Amino acid sequence: MIGSYDTTVARWGSPDAPITISERGRLFLETEVGVPTPTPVVDRSDVKVPASQLSEAARSALADAVGVDALSEADDERLAHAGGFSYLDLVDRRDGDSALPDAIVRPASSDDVAQLLAACVAHDVAVVPFGGGTSVVGGVRPERGPHSAVIAAAFDRMAELVDVDNVNMTATVGPGMTGPTLERLLGARGLTLGHFPQSWERASIGGYVATRSAGQASSGYGRSDDMVEALRVMTPQGEMVLGRAPGSAAGPDLRQLFIGSEGAFGIITEVTLRVRSQPQERRYEGVMFPSYELGLEAFREIAARRTQPDVMRLSDPQETSSTLAMGTDGAVAAVLDGYLKLRRAANGALAIFGWEGTRTQVGARRDETWRVIRAHKGVALGQRVGSSWEHARFSGPYLRDVLMDEGYLVETLETAIRWRDLPALRESVTNALKESLHDDGPGPFVMSHLSHVYETGGSLYITVVARRDAGNSREQWLAAKAAACDAIVASGATITHHHAVGRDHAPWLKDEIGQTGIDLLHVVKTQLDPDGILNPGVLIGT
Amino acid sequence: MIGSYDTTVARWGSPDAPITISERGRLFLETEVGVPTPTPVVDRSDVKVPASQLSEAARSALADAVGVDALSEADDERLAHAGGFSYLDLVDRRDGDSALPDAIVRPASSDDVAQLLAACVAHDVAVVPFGGGTSVVGGVRPERGPHSAVIAAAFDRMAELVDVDNVNMTATVGPGMTGPTLERLLGARGLTLGHFPQSWERASIGGYVATRSAGQASSGYGRSDDMVEALRVMTPQGEMVLGRAPGSAAGPDLRQLFIGSEGAFGIITEVTLRVRSQPQERRYEGVMFPSYELGLEAFREIAARRTQPDVMRLSDPQETSSTLAMGTDGAVAAVLDGYLKLRRAANGALAIFGWEGTRTQVGARRDETWRVIRAHKGVALGQRVGSSWEHARFSGPYLRDVLMDEGYLVETLETAIRWRDLPALRESVTNALKESLHDDGPGPFVMSHLSHVYETGGSLYITVVARRDAGNSREQWLAAKAAACDAIVASGATITHHHAVGRDHAPWLKDEIGQTGIDLLHVVKTQLDPDGILNPGVLIGT
Repeated sequence: MIGSYDTTVARWGSPDAPITISERGRLFLETEVGVPTPTPVVDRSDVKVPASQLSEAARSALADAVGVDALSEADDERLAHAGGFSYLDLVDRRDGDSALPDAIVRPASSDDVAQLLAACVAHDVAVVPFGGGTSVVGGVRPERGPHSAVIAAAFDRMAELVDVDNVNMTATVGPGMTGPTLERLLGARGLTLGHFPQSWERASIGGYVATRSAGQASSGYGRSDDMVEALRVMTPQGEMVLGRAPGSAAGPDLRQLFIGSEGAFGIITEVTLRVRSQPQERRYEGVMFPSYELGLEAFREIAARRTQPDVMRLSDPQETSSTLAMGTDGAVAAVLDGYLKLRRAANGALAIFGWEGTRTQVGARRDETWRVIRAHKGVALGQRVGSSWEHARFSGPYLRDVLMDEGYLVETLETAIRWRDLPALRESVTNALKESLHDDGPGPFVMSHLSHVYETGGSLYITVVARRDAGNSREQWLAAKAAACDAIVASGATITHHHAVGRDHAPWLKDEIGQTGIDLLHVVKTQLDPDGILNPGVLIGT
Repeated sequence: MIGSYDTTVARWGSPDAPITISERGRLFLETEVGVPTPTPVVDRSDVKVPASQLSEAARSALADAVGVDALSEADDERLAHAGGFSYLDLVDRRDGDSALPDAIVRPASSDDVAQLLAACVAHDVAVVPFGGGTSVVGGVRPERGPHSAVIAAAFDRMAELVDVDNVNMTATVGPGMTGPTLERLLGARGLTLGHFPQSWERASIGGYVATRSAGQASSGYGRSDDMVEALRVMTPQGEMVLGRAPGSAAGPDLRQLFIGSEGAFGIITEVTLRVRSQPQERRYEGVMFPSYELGLEAFREIAARRTQPDVMRLSDPQETSSTLAMGTDGAVAAVLDGYLKLRRAANGALAIFGWEGTRTQVGARRDETWRVIRAHKGVALGQRVGSSWEHARFSGPYLRDVLMDEGYLVETLETAIRWRDLPALRESVTNALKESLHDDGPGPFVMSHLSHVYETGGSLYITVVARRDAGNSREQWLAAKAAACDAIVASGATITHHHAVGRDHAPWLKDEIGQTGIDLLHVVKTQLDPDGILNPGVLIGT
């Protein structure tokens, strides 16, 4: 599925199928952002790998817990588990500056995990659950906190499809199962999970659950938190088995305390997911609205109906023009370009709609949505634009690697808010990023789209491209990120809709749940993980 | 809306419109259960009201907190807040044996609630949040625990519609708002909440949230926990304001810790609910399946589609024959009766389907459901049967009062489970009740229906009618309830789908969430309510 570049850099994609930027794309970026200075990637041979800090006793206890073959302190393994895919994680990798875990362990069962946790407690070793490693918020960055060492726990030995029940419509999987494997195994039984985050090619099911991930078809299939029927979590204080029934009033929903807990409360060892029949028909279409405002109004109205499409995505004019310039599908670019010329409209907002289900359902739901689209002057761009989006929907991270080679800073942020405050939120975050990242050129370029649409609001996904200040990379981005996060919480939005809190958003969580909420999370953490060995620093900080 | 009988008994309905049992109904019960011995209700003048245990200092502090006019120790007020509507609560009221709160307080604001909690802590007074008072699991029974006194907090002064937002599609209300008032106020704006539990006429929004209530149209409109966008909770340790965005990945969903917390963690002072447009069309229909098994199969298949009706309810053959005998709508009884004679089928299973929405949506969704109904040999009984059910859907409690006058024990239990284990669950709970409540007559009579249908399973709602053993009422029912609860947890089902845990289900919660889960709830309780003044005994017991 994914090839392997040098593990130091952890690029997306394969060296056999390199991504390139078109001339048109390059021109667009140079016009909007300015000409960058290419930044070289450190050579593997120049990367210094510090010695593992694992004590002899800890090493021995960990080997006892998971088996001696399932413990590795090899340099390349440690480099491969050095954080996730945030812009700064990538910068660190490229510069050869990543913090490394002292070892990698690979438990094969729930019992292994229990023994692993006991060994970590006994030998004062912090443990970072490392699923697909795709966190963009520092959730898998190896942080030892006050402990003697830090290890990463990988779950490729707990990646089984444990059970599929086509009466209950559930699938039970190990936490290391990945999306592509699960869809392949479910597909053979006529089923689907319907969860397609941009990180789908690498991310694990345990990671989906630990981070409250939302896929691109969440408007129809739901978020990961809607899909979790049951879960098993191993904590240093015992196992939790939660979720007996499809609906329950048996007190607080404790599943919802572990979903989104990012490894701070325990390690997810099994997940039972709701699955669905594979759709008979799938139809994706592009639509152009004459303005973002009209598109937004249409989206709100469509969401208020109970027949909304499975995928709904509205690009702002900036993202629309970027799609036009950067897109790799020439035919699609021609359609969009033709449209914009015809209308002489620089403010067009591109929308993607996707329907999945039985033929009758897709037909009926599409009819109803199109009534709203037409009422808001949306113009059909056809299925080619829709399926072009669908085929490219995992390619964002691939493109980012190439842009970073060119010397660009590229990062995404996301949030959610109720309808009424959405336009002001977009403006405020855009301004914060522009102000913070302004240099002597025309940039930065900030664009966004609305996705993950709910009856009461939606998620805003923002991409920023600037010129990397190579001598000052960390400070440059941290200042911009802080400005954007401040703008988000000041707007009344959530600090994250689907990327999770990780370490990078932890300082803003208090704005969202108050000191009483933070104290409550600390108490839960202390109860389940009194020694604080579980993923130190995530969620509630240190 | 509801008239008032003697407050000692707290009957449903009004003395001006008394409910009676038809001759046919009486004969049915005498055949299935046996002839009962009518049990008289204690005369108000014979009820002994013990003196309030409130100290002078506590009285004065409470009066300072909520205002002297908002504190009452009057006998009738105390009697009116003596527990909820479980069978044993009603038995106690009828016998004049209810435990009473020492006083009733009526806070008018969030600040009042904060001061009220401080006064309770300072003077060692337990406080029971008392919304509509419709708990059937002992959730509002006044239990003082180790404290010097116990008071009930009523919320009729916090029952405002604070805000309606027809862009965000939300309504913000005080916790004392009731369903009928909210629907009237929303209806005037073309909106609806769509939450119709059987207790709708009395229950409060705060109560819905505190108990994770599910309404009869939950298949379409969602459960109360799906409807809560945001909430404010006052705890002795500070206020929690939760729910900024329609979707969030900002850690654990702490709303889900307070939803279903039954007043043990804090007092809900404001709720923001998702609302919907009033449906253009509403269509309710009756269907007869030749057997429960075929009906069940059809329900499962309908639920697996994403076009399921808003209301889906399948009575087992016992409940079907009871509906036929006990129903007050003669025309409907004739339809059902005619059907059963025609088919010579004693095993018919009555189903109710309800669709709400735009004309197009109702049409399309109904077509698709009917395809499944027909494939499972379901026969149309028409809209009259459907609307008869709809009009009688809040009448269960009214009928129970009359049956108790006759000397019957009448109680309901409910649970939920995934599809595959549902038939065995029904059998097991039915047998447990029959075994425990068997006397020298033909009874008890046990019947059930499936409602609140999910893609992965559904809720089973069980009604039992036996002859009350007047000299031994408490022991008779407690033994049967324990046997049923044991059967429920042994079947792998949840101890409650929508009635909540209260005090009555607390012993079984450990089976559901394990000791680690119970410990976690204790830790949360201790953090937020270190003095344990909030509703002692609910949820996690004493």
